Amino acid sequence: MLQGYSLPLSPLGQANIVGTPPWHFSGDTIAFEFWSSAHAAGAILPPGLTMDSDESGRMLALFTDWQFTAQDNELLDPARYQYREFCVLVAARWKEKPVYWTPYAYCDNDSAIARGWIQGCPKKLGSIYQTRTFAAPGPASAPIAPGSKFGVSLSANGRRLANGRLTLRQERAATQFALDRPTVGRRFLPNLAAGHHHAPAVDDLVLAVPDDFTIIDVWSGDAELTFPEVVGDELHILGPVRVSAGYRFSLSSTISDLTVLKSFTK
Amino acid sequence: MLQGYSLPLSPLGQANIVGTPPWHFSGDTIAFEFWSSAHAAGAILPPGLTMDSDESGRMLALFTDWQFTAQDNELLDPARYQYREFCVLVAARWKEKPVYWTPYAYCDNDSAIARGWIQGCPKKLGSIYQTRTFAAPGPASAPIAPGSKFGVSLSANGRRLANGRLTLRQERAATQFALDRPTVGRRFLPNLAAGHHHAPAVDDLVLAVPDDFTIIDVWSGDAELTFPEVVGDELHILGPVRVSAGYRFSLSSTISDLTVLKSFTK
Amino acid sequence: MLQGYSLPLSPLGQANIVGTPPWHFSGDTIAFEFWSSAHAAGAILPPGLTMDSDESGRMLALFTDWQFTAQDNELLDPARYQYREFCVLVAARWKEKPVYWTPYAYCDNDSAIARGWIQGCPKKLGSIYQTRTFAAPGPASAPIAPGSKFGVSLSANGRRLANGRLTLRQERAATQFALDRPTVGRRFLPNLAAGHHHAPAVDDLVLAVPDDFTIIDVWSGDAELTFPEVVGDELHILGPVRVSAGYRFSLSSTISDLTVLKSFTK
Amino acid sequence: MLQGYSLPLSPLGQANIVGTPPWHFSGDTIAFEFWSSAHAAGAILPPGLTMDSDESGRMLALFTDWQFTAQDNELLDPARYQYREFCVLVAARWKEKPVYWTPYAYCDNDSAIARGWIQGCPKKLGSIYQTRTFAAPGPASAPIAPGSKFGVSLSANGRRLANGRLTLRQERAATQFALDRPTVGRRFLPNLAAGHHHAPAVDDLVLAVPDDFTIIDVWSGDAELTFPEVVGDELHILGPVRVSAGYRFSLSSTISDLTVLKSFTK
Repeated sequence: MLQGYSLPLSPLGQANIVGTPPWHFSGDTIAFEFWSSAHAAGAILPPGLTMDSDESGRMLALFTDWQFTAQDNELLDPARYQYREFCVLVAARWKEKPVYWTPYAYCDNDSAIARGWIQGCPKKLGSIYQTRTFAAPGPASAPIAPGSKFGVSLSANGRRLANGRLTLRQERAATQFALDRPTVGRRFLPNLAAGHHHAPAVDDLVLAVPDDFTIIDVWSGDAELTFPEVVGDELHILGPVRVSAGYRFSLSSTISDLTVLKSFTK
Repeated sequence: MLQGYSLPLSPLGQANIVGTPPWHFSGDTIAFEFWSSAHAAGAILPPGLTMDSDESGRMLALFTDWQFTAQDNELLDPARYQYREFCVLVAARWKEKPVYWTPYAYCDNDSAIARGWIQGCPKKLGSIYQTRTFAAPGPASAPIAPGSKFGVSLSANGRRLANGRLTLRQERAATQFALDRPTVGRRFLPNLAAGHHHAPAVDDLVLAVPDDFTIIDVWSGDAELTFPEVVGDELHILGPVRVSAGYRFSLSSTISDLTVLKSFTK
Repeated sequence: MLQGYSLPLSPLGQANIVGTPPWHFSGDTIAFEFWSSAHAAGAILPPGLTMDSDESGRMLALFTDWQFTAQDNELLDPARYQYREFCVLVAARWKEKPVYWTPYAYCDNDSAIARGWIQGCPKKLGSIYQTRTFAAPGPASAPIAPGSKFGVSLSANGRRLANGRLTLRQERAATQFALDRPTVGRRFLPNLAAGHHHAPAVDDLVLAVPDDFTIIDVWSGDAELTFPEVVGDELHILGPVRVSAGYRFSLSSTISDLTVLKSFTK
Repeated sequence: MLQGYSLPLSPLGQANIVGTPPWHFSGDTIAFEFWSSAHAAGAILPPGLTMDSDESGRMLALFTDWQFTAQDNELLDPARYQYREFCVLVAARWKEKPVYWTPYAYCDNDSAIARGWIQGCPKKLGSIYQTRTFAAPGPASAPIAPGSKFGVSLSANGRRLANGRLTLRQERAATQFALDRPTVGRRFLPNLAAGHHHAPAVDDLVLAVPDDFTIIDVWSGDAELTFPEVVGDELHILGPVRVSAGYRFSLSSTISDLTVLKSFTK
């Protein structure tokens, strides 16, 4: 009897690339709030979502160092389960509800890519780095303090897709931070049978349902962010026309559910 | 209007991790024919497939350096599309038909992982290496000739999963080689909605339908193959009790179709 | 006029793999104090160092996540300069002075490898991971608290060289921790001219001279550590016969000097 | 008694990052002949070399897939020893003798980096890719034939440093190809002792002395090559003002010697 939550199913159920939820995450994020052109922002939305007219073009770029665990002490096997992630969130509306749409995401770990696809987050493989803060003082420690600087980058296939810098200015209440809407993704499995290449087997707009979502230690500051143009990627089309703020914070969350908003296959 | 064959769909349709078929492949393979215990071989088969009683326990391990292209000169962007792959094939039967089942596969490229999942091949990220043959003569060239030696390895998450060696003995007719059955995979997309974690959205046994499948320059020889035990993977359970032969050959193929043998979700 | 501290020298002096000291470091370390056999410990010492008879066979294995900067905001380019490191330290004596000898070291960054060679630390490329602690609470956060568990690993060339686990028990004064001796390395540049392959151009026993060396937030706990046997590496020969303690701490340091204890080439 | 050719020296002599010469190489190269500005070409030469007045500004960029072996079947451990390399060669003169100077080089393997430093080749870690040719025919095979196209790239730290394309036109005699001069490098080991940071311990201009240097299967064709500007690297300063030709060929060589042309430390 083959066991597992995902492929590969196996006799002991230990080989699957993603194990059974709940999945637990804790991480440090450097976030950029920026504004894309209204045209670019509109063109990236899937059917069913609409521009948020109060904030057309507002987006977030998140660079996160993540630690993951499920039920089997995965956090003690960091070579397999620790990872880094970049994603873009676009302010949008599902009917009247303010949401964030996830057009692009990258991470450096295959298990995280697979979780992303199961969640409707379109992850590709990339290299993501952020300046970290370390406790022992010195020129290399990047303390959480006014004036402290942090750099971030995203690369894929040896090409730089994003560069950013944040200079911390002040601590903020967590409630003042902008990560205040649920996230919408798209679960999507293409068909390969001849004649059906453009009729996916699964194509569902889905709403993330995180548990125990905690954001702490929020700081805001001055920020710069650029998306260099790269052939074969389209992130640069969302290139900031304005970067309004940067943030650094820690967050944790548990995932074991989602809601299908709309299925395009039925 | 978002475009693409797979996620992420995008305005220009260039960001998708996998573009529209047909997909074309050309590569060099070092293959090992080995025998696992009948118990291990039986335990790795999915519902619907049965042991091949004439060859119970016969398997192949394939290490391939692949070049890929679709319709847009992808082979000219090797940083994104060139890759290496390992897979295991298990001799089995679908009803009366002799087939190969694919329980495990690894590759070093995210686009290839995604294609695998679309095809029903359970790819995870790994590092695969094979000794190559080079035209300029010398101690490092590994010519295709009797006595020439080739090494292979598979690692994932910094752990060695397979080691092999092949010593070439003689050229063989391509028809004598064992890669003589179609391949069966399992398309599988788990659900994340609470209460449905063990009711996948897609769970189909599928038969690969390659076009223009060509195998040339087949050599056989003496072979060794081991699967070291690694926590969190189960490849070692298929560890060879006997390695009957090794092969080196070149192969090319085009993929743009598959057949669903059986859907477990309906 | 070509500029730079190390190769490649270049017109602007920005291409060199390692820039001019001082070099500043801040990091988090998980350390294991272990005992190797006296025979193995003696066989790994270079000429000029002797066994420390009070502690023959005592060693440390350090797994560190490092942030580096020099004079040009290198910490804001983490894709190039942030790295992870493993090293072994062997308790020894230089004349009467208690020191640590560094027989083996690995890191995941070429600039750090080059700094190592300049310092006399024999770094090779490896993948090093440690469970991190994150501020946002939850099952994945690994808090600094009694009972909290941390995993570490070292791999090179797809082979696992070290696995360890630490369970925190209690906070300790920094002065109680064992990293209490200066480190000895060996600067070594082989010759390639025919007839001189075994007469290195540089072969100096050197003593590290760190500035501003700070260790804080020291915790100790119960520890396990193994060095699996791997062909082509000899770390396993130092495999622990006993693991006496594990530690987690933060440290920072500045490097801009060393002392030559003895030159073997003159 | 510690053994080995390079660090780390060890009881069995198997841990050293580079073993004793001779070193044997066989590979496939895609080469670009290009012309930099005379100013840039002059500014990259070390003391002792002069511009080649007949060809001021002529350079080669070489992208090579290499297989390496020494005396211990290293080619059978491709995960450790197979690698890819990029280097630039600048036409210059040592006294009257036409030579190539090596200002920049990258490869994806730590053992190859260390060999480079021992040879006076200033290697840094990078990702190098070339379209390969495969024997099995099809759209992905890139045959060696007129009109066949090959792409190459170099990246380091997630930033693209070079992109090139070659379209094969005709086979050439090996003697017509431009790789017709010996290569000059610079062996260089900085000092770290305070007050001596700019007085390297070793700083020698050296001439490579390859044995059994073989070039075969030379094809030439039309070529494009660009060096995008990247902060922290200076390759783009040599950016082609004209690309005169591209080549694909196979080559093999053995290295066990070099000649010191001039020592700057004495």
